[in-house]
Formats: sequence, structure tokens, C-alpha cells
Amino acid sequence: MSLDEFRKYWIEVHGGLGAKLPGLRRYVQSHLIDEAYLYARPHFDGVAQLWFDNALAMRAAFQSTEGRALAVDGPKFTDMSALRMFAAQEHIVIPLR
Amino acid sequence: MSLDEFRKYWIEVHGGLGAKLPGLRRYVQSHLIDEAYLYARPHFDGVAQLWFDNALAMRAAFQSTEGRALAVDGPKFTDMSALRMFAAQEHIVIPLR
Repeated sequence: MSLDEFRKYWIEVHGGLGAKLPGLRRYVQSHLIDEAYLYARPHFDGVAQLWFDNALAMRAAFQSTEGRALAVDGPKFTDMSALRMFAAQEHIVIPLR
Repeated sequence: MSLDEFRKYWIEVHGGLGAKLPGLRRYVQSHLIDEAYLYARPHFDGVAQLWFDNALAMRAAFQSTEGRALAVDGPKFTDMSALRMFAAQEHIVIPLR
């Protein structure tokens, strides 16, 4: 899959499936800019961030029917062995200026 | 350094240095929640996100005096060999709901 195909699939197919997760409050994909590929193959092609009210809501979302559909779709366009998932709490150092 | 010391240093010292970067528009640290450490050592303890107007502004910030001070501080509290840096463009799938 080319980088363009990957980006398109991630936004249109996987993003569409992710948007259906119950309890999901916010969902942002960060796609590496072209410049990031200039000198070496980067470790990742992007980062997905999904916001939930709490850890329980997050677990429930991924265990739902929609969550399982999302998990089935993952290997179709990503190398799951390179995937790094974790749950975090945001600390906003500078909101926006 | 304990996890609590790491978090405190990252917010108070490194976060304070990062906030001084010229052209920085937004700065968010995501700290892994305690639950993320329950079953296995995670690959990362957190993710920092820094927003700039464009790639040129980002490069200028890291090459500034403040950027060099930030780079000097990094190895004092993180394993730089495990660091993964990259430049990305956000694609907002769901803004907030």
C-alpha cells in the first residue's frame, strides 16, 4: 500500500469505523508530513488519539461491537507489531496562543 | 528516577523550558495513567505534542537558544534512545462531542 493509499484508508475507512465507537468524545489522527520521510524511514506513519470520559468508558468502547470491527480492520492497513497503544491523561502546558 | 519524579520533572522543569520556545502555539503532555503500568512495562511513559504554524517555524524553534536548552535537558530525565520524534499534520475526525 502506498503512503497516499494508507492515508486515504486511515481517514476514510478506519476513521469512519473509529468514529462509531460508543462513548468516544474526540478523535484526532496525526499524519506525518511529507517532509518527515525525506531523510529516513520514520518509526511511525502517524498517531491516533481517542478521548473518553475515563478508562472504563475506553475499555467498554473497545469491547463493543464497533470496537471489535475496528480491531478487525487494523491489520488491513497497518503493521500491528509496530503498533504502540497506551492510555494517558493530558496535561496542558500551553492551551493555545 | 521514580515515575512520580519523572512526571514532576517533565511538567515543572522540561515543560517550563518547552513553554519558552519561540513560535510555539500549543503544548500538551500526555502522561500514561497508572493503570497503563499494571500488566507490563509500556513502550513509553508519555507523549509530548507541540504545535507550530508550519515546519519552518518548528525548525527555527528547535534551533533557537531556547530549543538548545530544551535539547540539553532531555537526557536528564528521558532515555533518548527510546525517543521517537516526528512532524505531523492533524486530521480531526471528531472535534468534540
